[in-house]
Amino acid sequence: MDGTRTAACLAVGTELLGAARLDRNSLRIAGRLADFGIEIVEKRVVGDDTGRIADAVTELLDRADVVVVTGGLGPTSDDVTREAVARAVGRGLEHDHEVESWIRERYRQLGREVPPLAMTMARVVDGSRPLRPDRGTAPGLMLTTRGRLLAVFPGVPWELDGMLERDLVPELEMLQPGLRRVSRTLLLGGVVESDTEERVRHLYDRFGRENVSILASAGVVRLVLTATGEETTAHHHVGEMEHAFREVLGDDVAGCDVDGLADVVVDRLRQGGQTLAVAESCTGGMLGAAITAVSGASDVFRGGVLSYADDVKRDVLGVSSDDLRHRGAVSEEVARSMAEGVRRRIDADWGVGITGIAGPSGGTEDKPVGLVYWAVAGPAGCEVRHRVFAGDRERVREWSVNSALDLLRRRVEGAGS
Amino acid sequence: MDGTRTAACLAVGTELLGAARLDRNSLRIAGRLADFGIEIVEKRVVGDDTGRIADAVTELLDRADVVVVTGGLGPTSDDVTREAVARAVGRGLEHDHEVESWIRERYRQLGREVPPLAMTMARVVDGSRPLRPDRGTAPGLMLTTRGRLLAVFPGVPWELDGMLERDLVPELEMLQPGLRRVSRTLLLGGVVESDTEERVRHLYDRFGRENVSILASAGVVRLVLTATGEETTAHHHVGEMEHAFREVLGDDVAGCDVDGLADVVVDRLRQGGQTLAVAESCTGGMLGAAITAVSGASDVFRGGVLSYADDVKRDVLGVSSDDLRHRGAVSEEVARSMAEGVRRRIDADWGVGITGIAGPSGGTEDKPVGLVYWAVAGPAGCEVRHRVFAGDRERVREWSVNSALDLLRRRVEGAGS
Repeated sequence: MDGTRTAACLAVGTELLGAARLDRNSLRIAGRLADFGIEIVEKRVVGDDTGRIADAVTELLDRADVVVVTGGLGPTSDDVTREAVARAVGRGLEHDHEVESWIRERYRQLGREVPPLAMTMARVVDGSRPLRPDRGTAPGLMLTTRGRLLAVFPGVPWELDGMLERDLVPELEMLQPGLRRVSRTLLLGGVVESDTEERVRHLYDRFGRENVSILASAGVVRLVLTATGEETTAHHHVGEMEHAFREVLGDDVAGCDVDGLADVVVDRLRQGGQTLAVAESCTGGMLGAAITAVSGASDVFRGGVLSYADDVKRDVLGVSSDDLRHRGAVSEEVARSMAEGVRRRIDADWGVGITGIAGPSGGTEDKPVGLVYWAVAGPAGCEVRHRVFAGDRERVREWSVNSALDLLRRRVEGAGS
Repeated sequence: MDGTRTAACLAVGTELLGAARLDRNSLRIAGRLADFGIEIVEKRVVGDDTGRIADAVTELLDRADVVVVTGGLGPTSDDVTREAVARAVGRGLEHDHEVESWIRERYRQLGREVPPLAMTMARVVDGSRPLRPDRGTAPGLMLTTRGRLLAVFPGVPWELDGMLERDLVPELEMLQPGLRRVSRTLLLGGVVESDTEERVRHLYDRFGRENVSILASAGVVRLVLTATGEETTAHHHVGEMEHAFREVLGDDVAGCDVDGLADVVVDRLRQGGQTLAVAESCTGGMLGAAITAVSGASDVFRGGVLSYADDVKRDVLGVSSDDLRHRGAVSEEVARSMAEGVRRRIDADWGVGITGIAGPSGGTEDKPVGLVYWAVAGPAGCEVRHRVFAGDRERVREWSVNSALDLLRRRVEGAGS
């Protein structure tokens, strides 16, 4: 096989051209194509216009081996993708009785009336393979033209996913037989992007710069490691990469192929049969929300206190009036008392406290906007950290949550080892 | 002026073709163009490849009056947009001493060394207007070719925004003089999309179907009303639209041009000089997080209790063991006791309680996944609602938060009137 196969995506829908919505389907398509070593070279969005869709399909078929079109396959008068594809490849469009029966069957299964225009969906481009709708009502289609593969799927993500797996993946497997792209994502907490890059740079020569990508968000860094080749070899290779990167990064690696730090924390606590309570001021519930977003969090999460007002910190969590007055609500002492207080009050093995100035107002010369203290109280005592985070209110709060989760993870891991 | 002017966007960057990132710049560009009645007809993304960028620019200039390109203007060897644009319009690229001085000045202001490749950014396409970088270091450019306007901006959102306002907006104003598009967004809580559409459909004839769009997310519906024309007329017209829609929708309209229900709630409470406390079970902090995301929430939000475990509901909020045992943690009685308990415990004018089964597990025949109770306790007593929400864990939790915020808003408004 000479050269990597290429692909292009076209999303159809006037609503995807405005200020409110993006084509997100291309992300799942890109991810699935990447598994087979196929690279996307162009993405487009056009409105529900036969001429514009046809022009785009024609141009993309000139530029890529695989063209995936999504949207515009439904029964309304806006849905013109089928006509446009027929025009682009210069073929006819005929009513198909088998496809009609699929559509009628789907409406029946969904307990819905067949709308008057539904039979427009039973028209099939000459020489194409119609794709049976088993999640929605709109059939997709695939065809080969001038050695290129054209796949046309519904825009509804759930319906798209079904056809992607059932109909496109087998074609992709045959396109470059045996070629697979395998990746693993290391999740790092408590680090910054530039330092991480510095530490792992020497591994680029060994594994290839193009096989490592670094994605940073507020308080977490993700390292995506990729290997391409025959399936077993690729898995072996990516395993070697993970080993080498972990050796350099040590316990800054929180997990592999996990959603976020909250998943790691819930998992570690569950392993140790331990429980957690949180006390939040500037984050106002974001830490609790992140933890309880993990399905099964109830095994370890007992609850928490949102101590936004100072007297709530005092009356519910037992923070001393003296500390609040002399150290201030945003201080090491108060963060510590919040963590210890909620651990006691809610009767958990671990207590976390966060207090800070998320902004945009409320900062002073001594305590600028972005200053946050976080504390973790556990069986072996309490640790407090602080930092001035840059960015707007939302970003400061995200940094705070991830920093607290990371300190908690490290302490739980330390306690377990 | 005959016909609406059209635009197209091209985002440059290989990282925008993978499974992790989307071109979001086109959203802000679409929004700003819409203000001047200019409609986007196509969006594209291509990688950092001179030939592909040039082809895209050439094709888009054939199809739209305004073409906006973002990205690929920096100093690294990946940044080839300048060359590609020169190739697309068939012009030369020359070093410009004034542009060089801008760039040197910017690096000086930022306290950074001028990197070796920075002077590639001082090359200017013949006959184009270079755009001074006042937020980053990369100059943009604008040129006119075959009656079409081509604008090329950096991909960094903050830098893009600056040039969009300073350099593109004045051109857009001249393109269709006097033509403006004005819009207002009504935020509705406690309604579903299809019912809303049914209720307002008769207004489509009067104002035009294309001037109304409905966007629904979990528990809120947004109605975007738009008028195009001479500025004063358009403002007047959109005012009439707002009036007509409000007349039909009554107090289902929570606000106009606001971010979300939390903003409305904070605003209403502040107006009344009242305070709020929350008790959350299945939402685990999301309600508190939504409220405290509003800057200035500390005027009204006192705090809350995340009563995830049943004994926290009992010990901290005073929910009765009897109710927990006989009615269950997800019940009208417990939601009510949570709202009343947190109102008392945190000493606030209003208390909100949420308890439910977010799933995916934990459902029974009597109490299925998605069943949520929410309660609002206030000066005039407590009201409880419940519903079975469809969707995954995240969606059930979002619905719960918005449903509780909406009930709170209605009760606060009712109490104030």
